[in-house]
Amino acid sequence: TNPVFTGIDTTVFETMSRLAMTHGAVNLGQGFPDVDGPEDILQAAARALLEGPNQYPPMLGVPELRQAVADANNRFYGLDIDPLNEVLVTSGATEALADCILALVSPGDEVVLIEPLYDCYLPLVKRAGGVPVRVRVTPPDWNLDRQALRNAFSDKTKAILLNNPMNPTAKVFTEDELQFIADLCLRHDAYAICDEVYEHLVFDGKAHRPLMVLEGMRERTVRIGSAGKTFSLTGWKVGYVTGPASLLDPIAKAHQWVTFTTPPALQKAVAFGLRKDDGYYHGLARDLMAKRDRMAQGLSALGFAVLPCAATYFLTCGIEGLGLGRTDIEACETLVRQAGVAAVPVSAFYGSDAPTGYIRFCFCKREQVIDEALARLSAFL
Amino acid sequence: TNPVFTGIDTTVFETMSRLAMTHGAVNLGQGFPDVDGPEDILQAAARALLEGPNQYPPMLGVPELRQAVADANNRFYGLDIDPLNEVLVTSGATEALADCILALVSPGDEVVLIEPLYDCYLPLVKRAGGVPVRVRVTPPDWNLDRQALRNAFSDKTKAILLNNPMNPTAKVFTEDELQFIADLCLRHDAYAICDEVYEHLVFDGKAHRPLMVLEGMRERTVRIGSAGKTFSLTGWKVGYVTGPASLLDPIAKAHQWVTFTTPPALQKAVAFGLRKDDGYYHGLARDLMAKRDRMAQGLSALGFAVLPCAATYFLTCGIEGLGLGRTDIEACETLVRQAGVAAVPVSAFYGSDAPTGYIRFCFCKREQVIDEALARLSAFL
Ligand SMILES: CSCCC(=O)C(=O)O
Ligand SMILES: CSCCC(=O)C(=O)O
Repeated sequence: TNPVFTGIDTTVFETMSRLAMTHGAVNLGQGFPDVDGPEDILQAAARALLEGPNQYPPMLGVPELRQAVADANNRFYGLDIDPLNEVLVTSGATEALADCILALVSPGDEVVLIEPLYDCYLPLVKRAGGVPVRVRVTPPDWNLDRQALRNAFSDKTKAILLNNPMNPTAKVFTEDELQFIADLCLRHDAYAICDEVYEHLVFDGKAHRPLMVLEGMRERTVRIGSAGKTFSLTGWKVGYVTGPASLLDPIAKAHQWVTFTTPPALQKAVAFGLRKDDGYYHGLARDLMAKRDRMAQGLSALGFAVLPCAATYFLTCGIEGLGLGRTDIEACETLVRQAGVAAVPVSAFYGSDAPTGYIRFCFCKREQVIDEALARLSAFL
Repeated sequence: TNPVFTGIDTTVFETMSRLAMTHGAVNLGQGFPDVDGPEDILQAAARALLEGPNQYPPMLGVPELRQAVADANNRFYGLDIDPLNEVLVTSGATEALADCILALVSPGDEVVLIEPLYDCYLPLVKRAGGVPVRVRVTPPDWNLDRQALRNAFSDKTKAILLNNPMNPTAKVFTEDELQFIADLCLRHDAYAICDEVYEHLVFDGKAHRPLMVLEGMRERTVRIGSAGKTFSLTGWKVGYVTGPASLLDPIAKAHQWVTFTTPPALQKAVAFGLRKDDGYYHGLARDLMAKRDRMAQGLSALGFAVLPCAATYFLTCGIEGLGLGRTDIEACETLVRQAGVAAVPVSAFYGSDAPTGYIRFCFCKREQVIDEALARLSAFL
């Protein structure tokens, strides 16, 4: 069997969800909301299922969803995307990442990754034969080490893989940082693969700004979005890639051999969802922000060193002085077994040499669930 | 971009479906039924969607579907499969193939493939760094060239990829041929990746027999099934892999980074479907067989040299003497543009040196659609 996939662990999210189940813990590990997204989207999907056809849709995605994705890119970012040649629908953002990496990376190509990183990035780059070159954002501010980033780019750099807003750090890259990254891509003729699944989960009244809008980036960037995150339906596994036709074309070829298509009923319902008015999108961010604040206040009061959180589903916290164990992994084991609360160790998001003093809590949960978790933590500590 | 995915064509099925649309042709190219599967399965899915949760299910699949897949393996083939460690649910059989190949094949490994082959096989093996070694079944009988198969196996053989029942040939491998293949796998310590998506579409009262049941094969075979084919819901993209835990484990690791999961509502409905009684399965095969006969008779009467068809959705035909063009590709272009009927050239199922005298018609269509296609062909010829 292939060494990239042998002897490695099951993803930390799955592992923690299983542990949470076993120990009857409140699951603040894996990132998923505990309330499903809008009823009218569910109904649109159920209707499309019953009406059919439930047969292969076009390989690139149903036309109405490709149009809706193009329109959303225009509406939110002023991007002019051709729905026929510049949009691909995938079976979730994970498949989109796999397609992009398998299509754009050849053996020996270097790919710049920023740690902490989502856990599929390293194995996908390695399985494609790519050489990961890791740089970091560093806690507690999660600032980008620009000198290291500059050094990471070389003649062999094929692409940078950028997660913005960023999981697990809840960081939004600053305009300055984005410009710095764009300059490096342009100077080294590199692609940017932008995992922007949290694009609509940005707080404090801010708006997401894709790397793709920066000068010179339109032609070298592919941008990945997720209906799961945008509509609180993480199980649907509907994602989309937008990018120039020259890159979309090989990515679609990868897609046609990785899954070929995505269920048409779900695609149609997502097309309907993307056309929701600003009230929906603002409400989504506002609701999540209230949960963030509730969780952050509670954790701070308990002595966790809660780090800033500008976006996503996640709060990261320093655990020093809480007596939860020597490392973040020990702390998470203690919490899931003894406090009845599942979190994930931030060290799981590093290839090696991880900091071990931070854990991640997922806050996209009902108020009573957040309160229950806080009460359990309080009782334990 | 990666050369495996650059400069290659869109899959022939997608291309023909687009051409069929453009020319208002009856689409007998891409293999999908024109009537959706059982209403109660659709309703089960709609109900599960509306009830939720629509969040990440377990990465291996929802427990009730894994149990149903294990039970079906026992019921149909007497296989004893552990639902916890020997079943993986995937986003369609295509993803299952990608997972298996990415997980089991390392750069330099040889993989034996039998032509004509389903069009994702070659690019997936190449993208994994594998070396495809092609042998053939030869028309008009589609007999396996055993001498060539024996020579294809070597010290470097990691696996054989076997599609049985076989698309596009509609061939069911004989017991003798299966034994011959099994012996080679055992002698060369090779895995078998068995794409058995047409397992329930076997005609003339015969039953499918998986390679996995042969002595010594249980521990080295992974078997891929498809709800799309079994329930006439090709757009659902729900597939499953069964195999020994030692192989399932790395395949699940590939899956967790290729799509991670599959929509839970569809999984639950498929679990319900798999428990249907024998009447359903027999009815499915009987209905398709009637369509096969209707199409075969019509095509024969028009002068096509219809080859035997023991299973699948497909009839292959020799086109010599019909004046449709010099090659199968020309013939299909003539037919879609001038006769208003889309078929696919069998040469599209070969890596190189393809025979050019055969085309494939898909017959899983309503009677009136089959008749309309035959009438159009008749008018044209
Ligand atoms: C696909 S499971 C992981 C969900 C997620 O995005 C996270 O928890 O970081
Ligand atoms: C995934 S499109 C191809 C459908 C099919 O199995 C075929 O037509 O051979």
